Amino acid sequence: MVDWKNPPRLFIPGPVHVLPEVLEQLSRYTLGHRGKEYSQLHKETVDMLKQVLFTEQNVFLSTSSASGVWEGSIRNCVDHNETVLCTMCGAFSDKFADVARSCGRNVEELKVDWGQAITPEMIDKKLAEGKYSAVTIVYNETSTGLTNPVYEISEMMKEKYPDVLVFVDAVSGMVGLPLHFDELGWDVVFASVQKAFAIPPGLAVFAVSNRAMAKSKTVTGRGYYFDFQQFAKSAEKNQTPTTPVIPHIMALNYQCAKLLKEGMENVWKRHSQMAEYVRGWAKENFDLFCEEKYASNTLTTIKNTRGIVVGDVIKAIQTKHNTVFGNGYGKLKEQTFRIAHMGDITLADVKELTGWISDELK
Amino acid sequence: MVDWKNPPRLFIPGPVHVLPEVLEQLSRYTLGHRGKEYSQLHKETVDMLKQVLFTEQNVFLSTSSASGVWEGSIRNCVDHNETVLCTMCGAFSDKFADVARSCGRNVEELKVDWGQAITPEMIDKKLAEGKYSAVTIVYNETSTGLTNPVYEISEMMKEKYPDVLVFVDAVSGMVGLPLHFDELGWDVVFASVQKAFAIPPGLAVFAVSNRAMAKSKTVTGRGYYFDFQQFAKSAEKNQTPTTPVIPHIMALNYQCAKLLKEGMENVWKRHSQMAEYVRGWAKENFDLFCEEKYASNTLTTIKNTRGIVVGDVIKAIQTKHNTVFGNGYGKLKEQTFRIAHMGDITLADVKELTGWISDELK
Repeated sequence: MVDWKNPPRLFIPGPVHVLPEVLEQLSRYTLGHRGKEYSQLHKETVDMLKQVLFTEQNVFLSTSSASGVWEGSIRNCVDHNETVLCTMCGAFSDKFADVARSCGRNVEELKVDWGQAITPEMIDKKLAEGKYSAVTIVYNETSTGLTNPVYEISEMMKEKYPDVLVFVDAVSGMVGLPLHFDELGWDVVFASVQKAFAIPPGLAVFAVSNRAMAKSKTVTGRGYYFDFQQFAKSAEKNQTPTTPVIPHIMALNYQCAKLLKEGMENVWKRHSQMAEYVRGWAKENFDLFCEEKYASNTLTTIKNTRGIVVGDVIKAIQTKHNTVFGNGYGKLKEQTFRIAHMGDITLADVKELTGWISDELK
Repeated sequence: MVDWKNPPRLFIPGPVHVLPEVLEQLSRYTLGHRGKEYSQLHKETVDMLKQVLFTEQNVFLSTSSASGVWEGSIRNCVDHNETVLCTMCGAFSDKFADVARSCGRNVEELKVDWGQAITPEMIDKKLAEGKYSAVTIVYNETSTGLTNPVYEISEMMKEKYPDVLVFVDAVSGMVGLPLHFDELGWDVVFASVQKAFAIPPGLAVFAVSNRAMAKSKTVTGRGYYFDFQQFAKSAEKNQTPTTPVIPHIMALNYQCAKLLKEGMENVWKRHSQMAEYVRGWAKENFDLFCEEKYASNTLTTIKNTRGIVVGDVIKAIQTKHNTVFGNGYGKLKEQTFRIAHMGDITLADVKELTGWISDELK
């Protein structure tokens, strides 16, 4: 029986499982968003996020899913007569291009098959045409479980196209994968908190470079809700332009303190250990959907080489263990399935889940 | 000492005080937003909201503050060559006009002094010019504590300008004041949940008429995050287009059930009783900022006729009772102060607070 008050434990690639002590942070007494208590919470949290993201530039909190910052990055940083190069390798990078078009911008697609990576060479070849002011990239494609080689891409961009802005969707990458914002030379990066931050959905975190802030001043029709200038103005007072989702910011404060205590290198290592385990299990029982060198450390997409009925296995495990993992996304449904291993999910949790799936295969 | 983990009880006009049992709803285990559990929660909640708002048309949940729907109403329902008449009588109705301009639309202002109401006659006179496709109105101006005569305005609009769309900011009105969406003939109405719904901030509720939905199909550059067409498409599956703020939707479900059990007429009456008490106290000790017939039933703005230092009184009551009320908004700071009486605040709470303020006046 479907009962939202007694939901299954989540191993889908977001929203992910949230620990009870994190959930408790959401039920603290709320604050006046123009009062000193909120400013204190905001400053503490943003200061920690700057350490998490290795940046001394601008970090903002958006009361929205990260999809809102797809729109924000385009409306703020791409002028109406400019063209943006959208790299596309899965459902979410594809949608980033749709959003750019829905904002009335000129879009050119750099598209590979789902499961393939976007390489520095591909981007270089397109940018050599000289007509692009910005590039969109997804760090970690949640639909295919693929991590694009963003460090290599960024090296190439900094060397050959230093004036082209870089907008990175790091929704399922941030925290789980290395992210040195300033060093990478990115202009906008964003993520929702229901992925590796391991908080329920409702808040997005984003960083903006100083040069992207300057650019946004020159673009008209930015609107209001995602106007980076409004965010910057409010940030001076440790506030947000509109009333923020305070419960989630409290939980984010708690999680950032935990991350920094652990150390980001250790956090990334923990994710990679879980990923290695799941990849090993996947190769033993099925196969990886992506080439292994691009396989993500926050979720694994497994190729259904045995032709199991994925939906049935999910249902069986939900019935027996009140736990769900992810079917393939969109057109990859049943052809693949997905196991999340990010946030506060542990290696022990993942071993338990893969054990249950193995039991169903017998 | 400022400590966000031990904040004062809120009598500011939003965020308002939230009951512990409502806060607890936020810390339930979260859901997969594409799973059956979420759809069940979504459908239950939207069905109740339709009763709360007296509508059989479209009700949507936006993971944003209501400010996002300022932008959404404009981007979806005002075409690029059309002109919108923005009625302005305080900080928030003024901002609605700014937002319309920031979306690149033509705006004409109908402006009165803060504390004055917008009347049907004023709107009639402007609309007679024949050049407007839409009108923006704030139901209840949170900055001045004024309720516009929206039922009379709507009667006039339906009779004389049935083709002009009506967008209503009901941020501090919804739930606390009568709102029969279909009968009023409005096209968009919206509110944040941190006002009379008495939930922490992070979620907006909005209703859209069928004709506004049809109109939005014809407008280009709507973007993605607030695209009404995306909301409608997802609503067919009892979902939202982007990952929603699930903890708040759980709390909204809880609050809607409570409201409907009480009955909306009784809810409105309860608000009017608190308001009458506060107005009585205000007239005895100070004066009302607005003409009494326009004074709001969800908050009272009091004219500081005695020249007290409002900030000092707020500080004193915070120190003694860990409770805060609102100073005047913006340019009305110190000239006025504001007491919220909406949501789960009770008459006993309000009597206690006004008693404490009276003590400070001695």
